[in-house]
Amino acid sequence: MLEKYILAAKRETPADLVLKNATYLDVFSGKLRKGDIAVVGDKIVGTGEYSGVEEIDCAGLTVLPGFIDGHVHIESSQLSPEEFASLIVPRGTTAIIADPHEIVNVCGMAGCDYIIKASKSVPLDVMLNLPSCVPATPFETSGATLTGKDTEKHIKRDEIFGLGEFMNYPALIGCDREALTKAEAAIAAGKVIDGHAPSVSGYDLNAYLCCGVSTDHECDSGAEIDEKISKGMYLHIRHGSSTHNLGNAAFMTAENFRRFLICTDDRHAADLKEYGHIDDALRRMVKNGADPIRSIICATLNAAECYNLRDRGAIAPNRLADLVAVDNIKDFNAKIVVKSGKLVARDGQALFDTPARYLPANVLNTVHVRTLRPDDFILNIKSDRAKAMTVAEGGIVTGCEVVSVTREGGDVYVKGSDLLKLAVVERHKMTGNIGKGLLKGYGFKGGAMGLTVSHDSHNIILLGDDNAAMAAAANRLREIGGGMVIAQSDGTIHSLALEIAGLMSPRDADGFRKDCRAIIEKAHAMGVKRGYSAFMSLAFLSLAVIPKLKLVDKGLFDVDKFAFTNIEE
Amino acid sequence: MLEKYILAAKRETPADLVLKNATYLDVFSGKLRKGDIAVVGDKIVGTGEYSGVEEIDCAGLTVLPGFIDGHVHIESSQLSPEEFASLIVPRGTTAIIADPHEIVNVCGMAGCDYIIKASKSVPLDVMLNLPSCVPATPFETSGATLTGKDTEKHIKRDEIFGLGEFMNYPALIGCDREALTKAEAAIAAGKVIDGHAPSVSGYDLNAYLCCGVSTDHECDSGAEIDEKISKGMYLHIRHGSSTHNLGNAAFMTAENFRRFLICTDDRHAADLKEYGHIDDALRRMVKNGADPIRSIICATLNAAECYNLRDRGAIAPNRLADLVAVDNIKDFNAKIVVKSGKLVARDGQALFDTPARYLPANVLNTVHVRTLRPDDFILNIKSDRAKAMTVAEGGIVTGCEVVSVTREGGDVYVKGSDLLKLAVVERHKMTGNIGKGLLKGYGFKGGAMGLTVSHDSHNIILLGDDNAAMAAAANRLREIGGGMVIAQSDGTIHSLALEIAGLMSPRDADGFRKDCRAIIEKAHAMGVKRGYSAFMSLAFLSLAVIPKLKLVDKGLFDVDKFAFTNIEE
Repeated sequence: MLEKYILAAKRETPADLVLKNATYLDVFSGKLRKGDIAVVGDKIVGTGEYSGVEEIDCAGLTVLPGFIDGHVHIESSQLSPEEFASLIVPRGTTAIIADPHEIVNVCGMAGCDYIIKASKSVPLDVMLNLPSCVPATPFETSGATLTGKDTEKHIKRDEIFGLGEFMNYPALIGCDREALTKAEAAIAAGKVIDGHAPSVSGYDLNAYLCCGVSTDHECDSGAEIDEKISKGMYLHIRHGSSTHNLGNAAFMTAENFRRFLICTDDRHAADLKEYGHIDDALRRMVKNGADPIRSIICATLNAAECYNLRDRGAIAPNRLADLVAVDNIKDFNAKIVVKSGKLVARDGQALFDTPARYLPANVLNTVHVRTLRPDDFILNIKSDRAKAMTVAEGGIVTGCEVVSVTREGGDVYVKGSDLLKLAVVERHKMTGNIGKGLLKGYGFKGGAMGLTVSHDSHNIILLGDDNAAMAAAANRLREIGGGMVIAQSDGTIHSLALEIAGLMSPRDADGFRKDCRAIIEKAHAMGVKRGYSAFMSLAFLSLAVIPKLKLVDKGLFDVDKFAFTNIEE
Repeated sequence: MLEKYILAAKRETPADLVLKNATYLDVFSGKLRKGDIAVVGDKIVGTGEYSGVEEIDCAGLTVLPGFIDGHVHIESSQLSPEEFASLIVPRGTTAIIADPHEIVNVCGMAGCDYIIKASKSVPLDVMLNLPSCVPATPFETSGATLTGKDTEKHIKRDEIFGLGEFMNYPALIGCDREALTKAEAAIAAGKVIDGHAPSVSGYDLNAYLCCGVSTDHECDSGAEIDEKISKGMYLHIRHGSSTHNLGNAAFMTAENFRRFLICTDDRHAADLKEYGHIDDALRRMVKNGADPIRSIICATLNAAECYNLRDRGAIAPNRLADLVAVDNIKDFNAKIVVKSGKLVARDGQALFDTPARYLPANVLNTVHVRTLRPDDFILNIKSDRAKAMTVAEGGIVTGCEVVSVTREGGDVYVKGSDLLKLAVVERHKMTGNIGKGLLKGYGFKGGAMGLTVSHDSHNIILLGDDNAAMAAAANRLREIGGGMVIAQSDGTIHSLALEIAGLMSPRDADGFRKDCRAIIEKAHAMGVKRGYSAFMSLAFLSLAVIPKLKLVDKGLFDVDKFAFTNIEE
């Protein structure tokens, strides 16, 4: 088994593939070196002067280890895993630590198995974590529940990489038995536990870490970074579509930089296509003044070390031949991408096909809801003053503002005001639950809009100023098996299907992106303020772990009090 | 299971042990921080302000993670594992990566199992590698052979940590099937393979690394360090009794220092007692100008990372409570040592007992040789000119000098000259093999001296100017079950037993060291030049993997040609 590598390393036989005349990064010394990189099978066998059966001239390019995205939810791209790969592999990403939290909240383990199998056909290593928080809170109806017992069963599977971000940190810190069972199962299986602990510090952080959590991607300040690193966490610098903390790179020092990684967490197809993936994070970090070599090391060696992927993250003998040749380490334009020894992308274009997508029935047709009627959206409140949700443009933290409402015929009349009705329609188990509330300042007028992506349980979330349009929007979502919709009061309906779990489209990225842009534009044309991401800002209004006021299918939720609240003030 | 840690971390219950008022090293940021360190069971649960059932005031001290010796042969201390622990634990070492290469060459797997079991009673984590090169070469008779098949069987065992230093790099690079089988077995078992590759570079190094080897402790120059680090090796800075490369610390940079470790490799009881262990390496490195914090990180976090010991190497929640409080990070005098949460040493004194040593029969009485006669040491050569071995004082590389010899009665007469007879008497399998040669310039006169430690097969090695004394020396070694011996021509015999495999004494360190010093002094009194380590320099004259001329039981060996050679010139 080893002979073929040894013989090629010694140049007694030609390598399978040689990247000739490369300048390449030695991540261990932080030095750029010159030489050929010889590959046999999926492994690098040596650097020096080599001949290969296939040779690629890399003169003028800088070869880096393939990038590793340390934490990502593929579902947030709204694309299938195959198509997601077709966007990120040509950008130089060759491995991701993925958490299928969204699809598992809809489809249960079938969602997890779908991602595993769908990823197999593309040249991208998808290390799939088992989501730790399904559902995210006990206050909402999700499509599935993963108990401690389920976790014990599934975490042992070879194809499960680790335990996904443990967002329910209060449960761990509070010694909730179900939560501890999950952590204990991961520890017993020898698997990594990803963290998610915004602003958790001091003794609470100590307690959280005692549960074996090893990473965090939510750091917000130098003090938070300093404490979390000192306590042994690896920190992801995040470059998502709606959340970023690239500025955290400023806190890297010679002594601590090995503890930093890069992740995208949630990144939409449009951003992936237009700006890129980890390459874009590197480009921006360097532009902001970060050391380019240390930044690359974050996305390669450090990620490999954090996740115990000892076979990759460096250009050295015996490492996986996952390589990206960029024009330079300022612009990071990927010219050549090699995955496991095979040329898989050139000049930003994938050289692999993604047509025959794996689409099992159990991730399709996931919108289980009766036909909705206009009356379902009547908001019958008992006071002239009510709580309305507000959300800052570009943010996901919501506020609560007490507003005066116009009541009419047992309903609230919002037309012509700055208020909109907000509704979350349960869509997994036909419970009939509809949570209702008010949203202020979003800007939309003349109908309803909504989608089946709504964190984290992904029920139908709708807003509108017209009960009939809200019903029409929900019914269209049911018809198309989930997606995004705008129903005008005049009866016109625009929609874009997300057939996979109501979260992702099986279409190709280009076509999907165009239609996606069109429906988003339509929403803005109907008044959604440009500062919002028309649909995605809406999708976070149900995320009951982010302050302050949120709406779930069971009602209005005060996150600070971690309890339901009445709309009436 | 996790509750007790969480509750103590949150200060809802007292910790079991608290190191109060500590200044402690945060290895992740390279910063000294202040606070209490709280321990529950064997784990650190937090830093901050804590109360404990037991509290130790560490005001004025600096608390560091317990030191890890990245590569050591316990046998070289000449003490039992228990007694070895009693010397190094009070110095702050809490874990070692040990390679029982010496005892396995004598006793086979019984030697390995002995070290495993003997180590269990002491507060030191002994990660035991399976030796990869037993015997070291096919040109000598060892007590055991570990084949590829044996390696496949044993490497899987839970108590086997990895595959020991692969000294036979020519075999791997040369695609020797047995050697490859061993490496492949370790890879298949997911275990680390330690390296040993002096001056191996370029394409040969690439080939060696393709076999999964990950470390080296033999670097001799900046260029060698630079290349080996760039190719992904972890490098041990070595502080043994006869071999040192502490100067390699000068090549640490901000970018590469995470790839450096510290090891002692071979360190004798006398040095351990007098100067210390990893603490002494740190002391000297810092004295030579190395950054103290980076040096400590080499012996803690880096070693943990290299060997995938994710549970230790740092003072942080969820890490093993292996701690050493030193006076300062210049002198490194260990004042308090905590192993797995228990106080185990104070002011350099072990607080644990090592009396009831585990001494299985299969590591005792290992000198299997018939009664030797003076005639056995006749050196009947057919020329007046012969090859004599030379060895530089303080070194282990030998030279070959052609000398004139005085022949008399079918023997060589060395008395009164600068020559000595050298003999290696096979002692494992009663083969009757006696390799014979000449040694020039050692200085000994008036009898014979020898020992059962002779690398790597540990046959009896003897030198002398008197056949009768050589026979008497060998016979005494047989009587005492191995050890060190001096036989004067007047019939007086001095000896020190090494009952365990002929390599180690079961005695306590203090008594053993005193007697050891006495016999060494006796050797010098009989003429051995002070520049030599009287017995240990002799023990390396049979090491047929180190140039240039060596003597094994099967004859005189030319290491450069890797073949036997005639003594006659």
